[in-house]
Amino acid sequence: MERPRHQGMAKNTYMRWRLPLVCLLWEVAMIVLFGVFVRFGAEADAHWEEEKREMNLTSDIENDFYFRYPSFQDVHVMIFVGFGFLMTFLKRYGFGAVGFNFLLAAFGIQWALLMQGWFHSFKDGKILIGVENLINADFCVGSVCIAFGAILGKTSPIQLLVMTLFQVTLFSVNEYILLNLLHVKDAGGSMTIHTFGAYFGLTVTRVLYRPNLEQSKDKQGSVYHSDLFAMIGTLYLWMYWPSFNSAISDHGDAQHRSAINTYCSLAACVLTTMAFSSMLQKKGKLDMVHIQNATLAGGVAVGTSAEMMLTPYGSLIVGSISGIVSTVGYVYFTPFLESRLHIQDTCGIHNLHAMPGLIGGIVGAITAAAATEDVYGKEGFIKAFDFTGAYQTRTPSIQGGFQAAGIVVSLLMAFAGGAIVGGILKLPIWGDAAAENCFEDDVYWEVPEDEESDAYHMHNPDKPASP
Amino acid sequence: MERPRHQGMAKNTYMRWRLPLVCLLWEVAMIVLFGVFVRFGAEADAHWEEEKREMNLTSDIENDFYFRYPSFQDVHVMIFVGFGFLMTFLKRYGFGAVGFNFLLAAFGIQWALLMQGWFHSFKDGKILIGVENLINADFCVGSVCIAFGAILGKTSPIQLLVMTLFQVTLFSVNEYILLNLLHVKDAGGSMTIHTFGAYFGLTVTRVLYRPNLEQSKDKQGSVYHSDLFAMIGTLYLWMYWPSFNSAISDHGDAQHRSAINTYCSLAACVLTTMAFSSMLQKKGKLDMVHIQNATLAGGVAVGTSAEMMLTPYGSLIVGSISGIVSTVGYVYFTPFLESRLHIQDTCGIHNLHAMPGLIGGIVGAITAAAATEDVYGKEGFIKAFDFTGAYQTRTPSIQGGFQAAGIVVSLLMAFAGGAIVGGILKLPIWGDAAAENCFEDDVYWEVPEDEESDAYHMHNPDKPASP
Amino acid sequence: MERPRHQGMAKNTYMRWRLPLVCLLWEVAMIVLFGVFVRFGAEADAHWEEEKREMNLTSDIENDFYFRYPSFQDVHVMIFVGFGFLMTFLKRYGFGAVGFNFLLAAFGIQWALLMQGWFHSFKDGKILIGVENLINADFCVGSVCIAFGAILGKTSPIQLLVMTLFQVTLFSVNEYILLNLLHVKDAGGSMTIHTFGAYFGLTVTRVLYRPNLEQSKDKQGSVYHSDLFAMIGTLYLWMYWPSFNSAISDHGDAQHRSAINTYCSLAACVLTTMAFSSMLQKKGKLDMVHIQNATLAGGVAVGTSAEMMLTPYGSLIVGSISGIVSTVGYVYFTPFLESRLHIQDTCGIHNLHAMPGLIGGIVGAITAAAATEDVYGKEGFIKAFDFTGAYQTRTPSIQGGFQAAGIVVSLLMAFAGGAIVGGILKLPIWGDAAAENCFEDDVYWEVPEDEESDAYHMHNPDKPASP
Repeated sequence: MERPRHQGMAKNTYMRWRLPLVCLLWEVAMIVLFGVFVRFGAEADAHWEEEKREMNLTSDIENDFYFRYPSFQDVHVMIFVGFGFLMTFLKRYGFGAVGFNFLLAAFGIQWALLMQGWFHSFKDGKILIGVENLINADFCVGSVCIAFGAILGKTSPIQLLVMTLFQVTLFSVNEYILLNLLHVKDAGGSMTIHTFGAYFGLTVTRVLYRPNLEQSKDKQGSVYHSDLFAMIGTLYLWMYWPSFNSAISDHGDAQHRSAINTYCSLAACVLTTMAFSSMLQKKGKLDMVHIQNATLAGGVAVGTSAEMMLTPYGSLIVGSISGIVSTVGYVYFTPFLESRLHIQDTCGIHNLHAMPGLIGGIVGAITAAAATEDVYGKEGFIKAFDFTGAYQTRTPSIQGGFQAAGIVVSLLMAFAGGAIVGGILKLPIWGDAAAENCFEDDVYWEVPEDEESDAYHMHNPDKPASP
Repeated sequence: MERPRHQGMAKNTYMRWRLPLVCLLWEVAMIVLFGVFVRFGAEADAHWEEEKREMNLTSDIENDFYFRYPSFQDVHVMIFVGFGFLMTFLKRYGFGAVGFNFLLAAFGIQWALLMQGWFHSFKDGKILIGVENLINADFCVGSVCIAFGAILGKTSPIQLLVMTLFQVTLFSVNEYILLNLLHVKDAGGSMTIHTFGAYFGLTVTRVLYRPNLEQSKDKQGSVYHSDLFAMIGTLYLWMYWPSFNSAISDHGDAQHRSAINTYCSLAACVLTTMAFSSMLQKKGKLDMVHIQNATLAGGVAVGTSAEMMLTPYGSLIVGSISGIVSTVGYVYFTPFLESRLHIQDTCGIHNLHAMPGLIGGIVGAITAAAATEDVYGKEGFIKAFDFTGAYQTRTPSIQGGFQAAGIVVSLLMAFAGGAIVGGILKLPIWGDAAAENCFEDDVYWEVPEDEESDAYHMHNPDKPASP
Repeated sequence: MERPRHQGMAKNTYMRWRLPLVCLLWEVAMIVLFGVFVRFGAEADAHWEEEKREMNLTSDIENDFYFRYPSFQDVHVMIFVGFGFLMTFLKRYGFGAVGFNFLLAAFGIQWALLMQGWFHSFKDGKILIGVENLINADFCVGSVCIAFGAILGKTSPIQLLVMTLFQVTLFSVNEYILLNLLHVKDAGGSMTIHTFGAYFGLTVTRVLYRPNLEQSKDKQGSVYHSDLFAMIGTLYLWMYWPSFNSAISDHGDAQHRSAINTYCSLAACVLTTMAFSSMLQKKGKLDMVHIQNATLAGGVAVGTSAEMMLTPYGSLIVGSISGIVSTVGYVYFTPFLESRLHIQDTCGIHNLHAMPGLIGGIVGAITAAAATEDVYGKEGFIKAFDFTGAYQTRTPSIQGGFQAAGIVVSLLMAFAGGAIVGGILKLPIWGDAAAENCFEDDVYWEVPEDEESDAYHMHNPDKPASP
């Protein structure tokens, strides 16, 4: 489907009418659907006073808002600053990294409120939303941000909006299958967010394979300050990951436990990442790409099990392993994936999200299968795995099996969905750039002429040195 | 009053004795006034144990601290990092943007604690403060940060401290008129913070009009990395705006609802901003100025109504409209204001705060006027609008009228106050820079000689290339 | 012990096997020790449901998680982004600043959980952890980050890991002596964190004195953008310091009060810092080094007393004084310490942590000695100072004496510990760089070749201008 072209000018990246049209169309659709479907949940509605009496609550502090709002804000920061700045490492794609991430996430959370609402918060024809829905919408969009990492610098904003529309839809279906049909636990989303999001993105980038991408190879690296901007993203993801994994856990001990497990896992992950980053480099020097990314694998890898009784030392082990796997991935797997499998993965999401996501799913299955009433307490056991109603008779080992099934379903959804969506994005109507213009903000952004670029021009004898 | 001068050296920007004098004078005054007036409120005082018994509270968690502290910290980040970094977009005024914002806000919050304290927390000769006072002080200073945006790069730090003194005073008077005399609702401050702050700042910059400002035109732009720094400010404002609008709402459903409405409005705003940014540019490219600013208009525009039953789809509509208005403002109104009305608005606060603030006031008036007992519930209706005591008989439509009156009062206070304060700042004693030195950190800051400036020098044949 | 060498190439900074070995060894030890000792505390354990019944708690919101988690996250940001970015001011040491801070903190929190756990949370052979332990671990590591500031740019990552191991150990011993044996109050850590950490670091850097450090003098400065990165660190430390000082205070009024006192102190500190920064500079210009650092002294200086009835105006006074002392320190003491006492203090921690820490300890002693039942209330008095059990008969003036003793103990521990650890770090086996390679990321990091460094090369006639 990729037609041969002359170098450079051939592709039409003119966005003037296409991008506004898609944005406005999407937004009008949101307004109409919100108007028909979305209302405040009981805890955000002005009828709350009456509700409180009915629910026998004595204080406003029992409102779910106070249990989850701080975590919500942390997650919000992860999606917009965390993912946005993590991707600013490219020397001339900072606007696209932060800006397009902003665009797709802002659209995605609206569509996710609807999709997830229909599946989980639908009552008498209305979607009733509260702070937990906001968190879940952010989570869902997180999986799109992950996929964005694989195709960073190679797609138009319209492609991203189209991908977001489809990926949020598929995410919600997959999530429904896992949480409701398989009755799987996955509070931090190792399977629903990371495994699904990463393999979806990898499949899309495979379909969009660009054989001539080495034409923009010089722009695929970082510069000194862009690496520091990326560290802002890294650190906010790293610091707030305990909030991510605990945000929608049960009130009380489960939230508390998730935060502790994640904190431990991430701390261990930093040490093994540093160790392997130095070890795998001939000169023994540390590589910022590893520090920026592999240090986060520990958060991904306890996503499913953090709210379980993984225990602090269990978390250290999982974190240590995932840091190693992720760093090794950057050094050996990413080049392999590109040269042999034609998977061009700009940010290395295979190392940061895909493999650690799988580890997370597996660790979750094992931890669930190993659960005993002794470790959890009689009530705690039932509460932790929701072994009530139809699931009253489920045993830990069966739960472990279902958890494992959740991994497989997520993978299948990701591959199938990614293939279809990749095919759609391959249509030559979305305004993506030619290979030699990839990783270059100038294509879609007004870029200021600055001193740095003056300095840059100096080395290009074709261009005049002064502006 | 602007005397004719020779190019460049004529203005005396020497700060050595003036700035320290003002800072220390201001601070000594604060210490004396705090000593006389400010004490801990009941919930922060060591007598709290006894208080708890009297108030019949069974748990420490009922302390207002736990209802509002997370929101307070988010608001705090918005004032110092949000506003501070938003203004770093200028290529050589980053120190001034972050540093002067830091200075004026740190002074302003002290003075605001006193001014707002006398009006709202005064009891038996003492101002009793708690976390809500801290939030309100931050809010008040927010309006100064907004006004700072209009005069960014053109004023001395002393002028900013003088302006802060007066603006905080006027803000508190205006706020008292609105909240206490008109009994207006304005939790997110569309009127008190944004409309007042923006029109105050625009009036000040009008009075301080500099006819020769084009002499520093080359410094009014951004460079690549300064635009990324500004995005840090943008994103923190955007992400934490739900906390801003809900921070001082009633406990429970009102805080919950404010956060949801603001979240929705801001998400919609991003899409319409991107759409119009691309549409209004000949080449269809996105403009960072719009993305940095207009995406935030949605937060401003639901400031008054967020805690009301605006509903999620109402928020999407308001957010969509304000993104469009704001972006159109940057493209068409700002040049017009400068060339015709002589209003030099460095950051475009007219587009980000003034117009969306007015929208916010109007939306608030309409939402209040449209309120019914059916929508709010009998108790919720009374609680939401505080229709108790002297206001027991107020109807929604009358409330709507008072809300509208609040807009008018805020505008009048802003124009009158801005004109007076602008006149004071025009006195030739405050050490502002000459027109050709505007937007240049070098005037008030020790600026490091760096590589970039070396590169820059190379294009200035007058200066030697090496340091 | 420092052997004479030829310029430059002599020192072996090859990290390939040493750094991975230390990292992995450390991490394996953590896993084993966590496996043997660390378990979830009651509020994070799945048995919480039963616990709740026993403790007679009616709601999940009574879980300590909800009292402290928002503060924990703020403290977490201070340690990783705050300290990390504060130190990025150096023009070519940003990777080391953020990256090594990340490494040592991630290791330190694990070791601190153990050390502090053995002293404070040990029960039936197990360390039981919850959110308060996470905060305390972050606090402990904070003291290492402080010490890191003194030796920034002059040590290898292995030295930092070795120092962290010892400093965390000594910190915990010192903390145990102060809090448990002397029964001293120090919630914000003026003594345990700042005084101890800073004098420890200063002693270490004294022992590691490098006589030829002027060889890398050109790299000890900042560039324009590195100063802005540092301001990110500054502002996050400044904004979240109220959370730092209140994070482990008693529930209720004490946390509330700590936050207010710290907020006030920091606000005042900004004004006096600006005043003295301008006053002490010949041209009256502001110096970013002061703004980045001295503005924070106000938070350090109320660390001990913030949870006491210091009162808002007392906080303003303390903040004002500490801003002055700190700024004066940068201008006069730092050069003196370097030239006369051979203490090379890269970040000026003597001004930001050591002196303000001492002020904090003294203010704490005075505030404690001046406490009366009248001011605190009968119950509040006992609760604030924990005058129960063995300490039932302690009077305020005796408490003041013990507080003062706490300062002395912290100083002694810092000097003795710093001397020993400095001696260990002087061993020629840790791979530190030669004097002319200090403050240069290139030694331990893969650094991208970028435009800026191209521009830089141009001024080095020895190197070719184009890559």
